[in-house]
Amino acid sequence: MFAEIITIGDEILIGQVVDTNSAYIGKALNSIGVSVYQITSVQDDKEHILKSLKEAEENADIIILTGGLGPTKDDITKHTICEYFDDTLIQNDDILTHVEALFKKYISTPIMEVNRKQAMVPSKAKVLMNQNGTAPGMWIEKENKVFISMPGVPYEMKGLMEYEVLPKLQKKYKFPFILHRTILTYGAGESIIADRVEDWENNLPHFIKLAYLPSLGKVRLRLSAKGDNKKIIKDEVERQVSLLHELIGDIIIGYEEENSIEVTIGKLLEEKRQTIATAESCTGGKIAEQFTANAGASVYFKGSIVSYATEAKIDVLKIPEDVIKKHSVVSIEVAEAMANNVKQLFKTDYAIATTGNAGPTKGDSDVEVGTVCIAIATPNGVVSDVYNMGNHRTKVINKTMNKSFEILLKEILKN
Amino acid sequence: MFAEIITIGDEILIGQVVDTNSAYIGKALNSIGVSVYQITSVQDDKEHILKSLKEAEENADIIILTGGLGPTKDDITKHTICEYFDDTLIQNDDILTHVEALFKKYISTPIMEVNRKQAMVPSKAKVLMNQNGTAPGMWIEKENKVFISMPGVPYEMKGLMEYEVLPKLQKKYKFPFILHRTILTYGAGESIIADRVEDWENNLPHFIKLAYLPSLGKVRLRLSAKGDNKKIIKDEVERQVSLLHELIGDIIIGYEEENSIEVTIGKLLEEKRQTIATAESCTGGKIAEQFTANAGASVYFKGSIVSYATEAKIDVLKIPEDVIKKHSVVSIEVAEAMANNVKQLFKTDYAIATTGNAGPTKGDSDVEVGTVCIAIATPNGVVSDVYNMGNHRTKVINKTMNKSFEILLKEILKN
Repeated sequence: MFAEIITIGDEILIGQVVDTNSAYIGKALNSIGVSVYQITSVQDDKEHILKSLKEAEENADIIILTGGLGPTKDDITKHTICEYFDDTLIQNDDILTHVEALFKKYISTPIMEVNRKQAMVPSKAKVLMNQNGTAPGMWIEKENKVFISMPGVPYEMKGLMEYEVLPKLQKKYKFPFILHRTILTYGAGESIIADRVEDWENNLPHFIKLAYLPSLGKVRLRLSAKGDNKKIIKDEVERQVSLLHELIGDIIIGYEEENSIEVTIGKLLEEKRQTIATAESCTGGKIAEQFTANAGASVYFKGSIVSYATEAKIDVLKIPEDVIKKHSVVSIEVAEAMANNVKQLFKTDYAIATTGNAGPTKGDSDVEVGTVCIAIATPNGVVSDVYNMGNHRTKVINKTMNKSFEILLKEILKN
Repeated sequence: MFAEIITIGDEILIGQVVDTNSAYIGKALNSIGVSVYQITSVQDDKEHILKSLKEAEENADIIILTGGLGPTKDDITKHTICEYFDDTLIQNDDILTHVEALFKKYISTPIMEVNRKQAMVPSKAKVLMNQNGTAPGMWIEKENKVFISMPGVPYEMKGLMEYEVLPKLQKKYKFPFILHRTILTYGAGESIIADRVEDWENNLPHFIKLAYLPSLGKVRLRLSAKGDNKKIIKDEVERQVSLLHELIGDIIIGYEEENSIEVTIGKLLEEKRQTIATAESCTGGKIAEQFTANAGASVYFKGSIVSYATEAKIDVLKIPEDVIKKHSVVSIEVAEAMANNVKQLFKTDYAIATTGNAGPTKGDSDVEVGTVCIAIATPNGVVSDVYNMGNHRTKVINKTMNKSFEILLKEILKN
């Protein structure tokens, strides 16, 4: 059974906004056994939306639309849906009550007519309650197909997917089991890997597909399997992963789980009742922000000092000025002092420290753009190293963050 | 004249990868006057790619494909293009030389047969040299339409767009002028804005479209205009923006050129030779990270203390314990003390402080989830207020960040 995702909005087509909704929806659908046939991004234009609905109905059984449900004139999805299903808008009293309550709670100005219109829905639609906003989701069945419309605001869409769409789809259909397993490799290009696994790849069962996802310095290998028997799928994928280990175990460094690495770190720290703080220069708070984006982080994450300016390293982090003068602000010595001092200040078990030059100019040090020192303070001392993270600012920051998490995780697992 | 973008790859449909290429291509095409009709993401499947090529040829004059050009078995774009154009692959000697040179320079292992195959291209294709990788871009004309195929690796695609595709398109076609102007507003919802600008919106000339882009605490208004006469377009858009200023000047805080609000703040601080630091609890470093994401931030951004744990507020930020006990950790009093103390510690002119409960549970305070106190320390004192930012973690964090920037900007403009 296939789904098609239609995202509505000129902002996507002119490149003002990156469509992150589709990836979220694709992943969520896969998790309950629904494959996505196609993602189509279309203009805020009635004829275009009608055409895409017609094509999607030919391609797929589940058609998911996002966007165009706001209260302003450029939001035309509801009227277009009415036209497609030869329907009219009627008032839904539950939605009206919900909209009025939201206004009362969060908005100081009185409710207006356009806001009340959010409660108008096609008569054929079942309403999906949007806890995070005024625009309701809609569910319309036609023969054995279902059309689902959701607002494009990501957190509103996510709430609807989790609490309404996925449970309702699982109730209505019986889906097969889909399993993706992604193996991370470092140190060999995709053509070399393909050469080493050629026989294995040719002998994969028909229900397992292999994909190569290369990116600077690493290649992810994804096995995707689909079938009705969960146990057979799981066992066979595991067997194939073992065979792969025999062939290229030397370059495999792990798996891509659902959990990001900072969540894994957080869970381990929580189990061990240990804590962490960060001292960040070139990452500028990015590492702290990644930790605190997760609910419950306060159990293990104590805080951070972003010592962006050199004075801040001296005044706030208490790095001796002569250490900075002697070794330069981007040095192993300064990184280690940052890690040790922040660990002491926040009284934690671990600390991450980063100092480097993210570019594009040299800044407070003479080191080459892309040079970064990372130090990890642990209950047993401090480990540190210097890296060249390339020459693009965002890349340097993100690579430094990832490398810090990688080293930290190894250290936590050791202790 | 319309373009259609087709992105090829199962990784997009299963949500493993967010398609950022299409936004980049959409923006680049708009900059030379080409509108994108549709973005279509399809599977690594020959029949599906053929179908999407046929549909795109009906919709558009310029068809841009990305993905599926690697050396491994799941990369089928080249063969599919051959089938679509009834063509065969032939060896291109320039590409072969290029691939061999790349191997010699960057890769320690010897070149293999699959790598040499990168030099095989459809005989009808003009080759677009990819300076950043082994897979060449391809340009195939059919009647007055053009099909362009590029690798999906973002920096390879970007190089090809900039140095090959855009110049070639501008040479081949005469495009109209497209202008997008995005006005940033803070502090009013989209329905309130729509109400205030209703007459103006109804009287916009036909060649200017208005879009509302709401997100947590701010609404962006985008005017999009298209026409042959650049001067008329520019003048009329500026005239409409002036009219808009008369109507809602009180909530307009600037424009989105490439600039976000933190960049505007950074520029102002740099001009005035003033500096800022942040003390962040519920935002967890997010505000610091936004500042430091911009090159040159070190001129005005000194650093941050992320005092996530209550102990950190006492030990590191030196908030008196009795103030916290008396007023609770989420209080105006604590926020103001955080702002004042971090301003003093980092010796800055301004400081932002946030303390609140981002949820989902109550944490170290008794306040309701979503309650946030923001304080802004300025050269003339400190301003602060308490807000209800809703009940979703990411939303609370982002709304708090946006509200902080909004108040800070107003304060900087006052001083």
